[in-house]
Amino acid sequence: MGDVYATIYTMRQSELFTKTQKEAPKDEMAKNAQLLERAGFIYKNMAGVYSFLPLGLRVLEKIVNIIREEMNAIGGQELHLPSLQKPELWAKTNRWNSMTNWFTTKLKAGAELGLAATHEEPITEILSHHIDSYKDLPKYVYQFQTKFRNEERAKSGLLRLREFLMKDLYSFVKTEKEQNEFYEKCAEAYYKIFNRVGLGDRTYRTFASGGEFSKFSDEFQTLCDSGEDTIYLDEKNKVAVNIEVYNDEVLKELGLDKKDLKEKKAVEVGNIFKLGTRFSEPLGLTFKDEDGVEKPVIMGSYGIGPGRLMGTIVENHNDENGIIWPKSIAPFAVHLISLGVEAKEKSDDIYDAFEKAKVEVLYDDREDKTAGEKFADADLIGIPLRIVVSKKTLEKDSVEVKNRSSKDAKLIKIKDINSYVR
Amino acid sequence: MGDVYATIYTMRQSELFTKTQKEAPKDEMAKNAQLLERAGFIYKNMAGVYSFLPLGLRVLEKIVNIIREEMNAIGGQELHLPSLQKPELWAKTNRWNSMTNWFTTKLKAGAELGLAATHEEPITEILSHHIDSYKDLPKYVYQFQTKFRNEERAKSGLLRLREFLMKDLYSFVKTEKEQNEFYEKCAEAYYKIFNRVGLGDRTYRTFASGGEFSKFSDEFQTLCDSGEDTIYLDEKNKVAVNIEVYNDEVLKELGLDKKDLKEKKAVEVGNIFKLGTRFSEPLGLTFKDEDGVEKPVIMGSYGIGPGRLMGTIVENHNDENGIIWPKSIAPFAVHLISLGVEAKEKSDDIYDAFEKAKVEVLYDDREDKTAGEKFADADLIGIPLRIVVSKKTLEKDSVEVKNRSSKDAKLIKIKDINSYVR
Repeated sequence: MGDVYATIYTMRQSELFTKTQKEAPKDEMAKNAQLLERAGFIYKNMAGVYSFLPLGLRVLEKIVNIIREEMNAIGGQELHLPSLQKPELWAKTNRWNSMTNWFTTKLKAGAELGLAATHEEPITEILSHHIDSYKDLPKYVYQFQTKFRNEERAKSGLLRLREFLMKDLYSFVKTEKEQNEFYEKCAEAYYKIFNRVGLGDRTYRTFASGGEFSKFSDEFQTLCDSGEDTIYLDEKNKVAVNIEVYNDEVLKELGLDKKDLKEKKAVEVGNIFKLGTRFSEPLGLTFKDEDGVEKPVIMGSYGIGPGRLMGTIVENHNDENGIIWPKSIAPFAVHLISLGVEAKEKSDDIYDAFEKAKVEVLYDDREDKTAGEKFADADLIGIPLRIVVSKKTLEKDSVEVKNRSSKDAKLIKIKDINSYVR
Repeated sequence: MGDVYATIYTMRQSELFTKTQKEAPKDEMAKNAQLLERAGFIYKNMAGVYSFLPLGLRVLEKIVNIIREEMNAIGGQELHLPSLQKPELWAKTNRWNSMTNWFTTKLKAGAELGLAATHEEPITEILSHHIDSYKDLPKYVYQFQTKFRNEERAKSGLLRLREFLMKDLYSFVKTEKEQNEFYEKCAEAYYKIFNRVGLGDRTYRTFASGGEFSKFSDEFQTLCDSGEDTIYLDEKNKVAVNIEVYNDEVLKELGLDKKDLKEKKAVEVGNIFKLGTRFSEPLGLTFKDEDGVEKPVIMGSYGIGPGRLMGTIVENHNDENGIIWPKSIAPFAVHLISLGVEAKEKSDDIYDAFEKAKVEVLYDDREDKTAGEKFADADLIGIPLRIVVSKKTLEKDSVEVKNRSSKDAKLIKIKDINSYVR
């Protein structure tokens, strides 16, 4: 299969349609929204509803691809379910009336429909057409699809939205044992994902309420002062308890000691649920076991919101000048900056060489910006490696390289750029 | 950037969760829906609303990537706009009340929202924050995003949906001349796309109504007996006229002669519109020209529905046994079929070799299916190249190869498979 951005490894900043802004929009309180909007990654269409502009979509797609790789690695099969939902299906599980965050709409003929806030019901219905026997299990399916949630309040930028992309994986297995094994396997995959996007050292598996499905579920909470959740963290054992289930009985059950736990603010970046037969029974998803006995399929669900992850990464990776993207999900690997007319020709050559080598480069070739403006934009946008070409650097056959996360710049010879960047 | 299906070049059919069905669902009248549902590519959630299952999503993503490549090639910058829309924005262009196909919904606090049936208004609003001067133009932006359309009737499978993926590109230029040039450039890109997906020889640029925007627009119509549109085709000159503007005055204006025109059924697979200043004026998208004069930006819009394209391809590429995918968009390049226990080990080896060579292979390793069942499934699913491994072929150190579109099979030596497939 082709690349996502088949032909777009490189881009000239003079052609990019977005511009940076000096000031954050006044109605944005969250750091992630302030920085992402100022830098031109996202646009707020209304409270809780954002557009992803070219730089933002590149980051989002990179996060999606990391999640996709890890879901494929544990046997996930990707599909795509629709947003429009019929009440008849959700009435069978009593969730048409019990879920409080539906956006509803109507067909012309008058029938009511819902916009999916989650997808357990339609995926269970589809699987019921394909699962007959124990030989057809286990199966793991997932998608990246918009969820619509009619939140009372939507603030915190990308951390809480009314319309957002979600990766939801659903597992279908025969026994509790199989369920537990896959649950742990998916938890491991989640750690890999959070490590790969640069949140590994701040993200903790957290005991949380299982809602209507089971006693506990597991959340993955990333420490973050602007997080909406409160957790009690045992840093040594790397586990946490959500405030919603923080009581003596639970602590005892989990073998945790109050004096090892610190209260922290956090963002829920992932969650995993054991669903048991909550959906398979009412929707008739059964299988014949080895003895010919018809049994309900045991299910689990596993969510990660790539957009929320992006917001959380920005909350955790920034300084007073802007975003500091981890390399794995940065919109580009290199921000190449040309200063002054004398540097133009050589800068163009370096850009062409990067293009040929398929290095992802944003090239600041703008002729109407000062050095100061270009450096400020580079800091705000947050690409990991800045390379400056100027008359001064060229006098030494060199360019100036600087990591976004460091204060120190140094000169390297032009002939050494390629090996330096690799 | 990584591959879309980073690790999924190959798949064992025993693991694929979908099964084929002998009979088409009774409520599906359209050939595309009958074949795609029987083969497990799609699932009908309700009238006009479908899921894309793993095989179907692979085809859809390949179509999307072909379109993406051609849009990138003409300078398109990809972004992603939301579905939820605020009436205030669409009231400024009078489309909140005049568009008849809105799905509407409500926030908890009571405010009405719409689900985007198209995206001219939000993209114009965003660009108004980034375009100031003639130096900022031209710009071309596009997205792949769901459209919701409250159609009275939704039939014809993937040809007419209430919820569907759309590629919509919007152009922003300074002058009519620039508009006309880009319009023709995009028309050429569309021809490339239709050629690449296997519809080139049946798809014609068709004069159609410009609706409220301009006198004419251009549609790309693919000949198809189950199409909903009627066109008058001049085969020699490779142009057509939509029945909606088929009258003496128009024919004269276009220099077409009634006697050269044949009435045909067709599917609209793409359309391109000159929008003029219809949206930029009411939404305040202006630029300062070289003389410092403030002018409204001139816009165009350019749509293709990847799902409708997929349905049209199936309508045009099938036989009595199933689908016949063009190679460029087939879910896999090779359908490898192992027959009988004697062939299992060698089949596994061949599969592993394909995996290493990154050849896309669906491997029918199922042990509980007869040769007849496997061949029937392969014909239904429609992968371009079938490779059969059996005791009989192995006796000659060979496998049997057969193109889906041909009746003839032949033996080739196992050592020659790789060069044969390439």
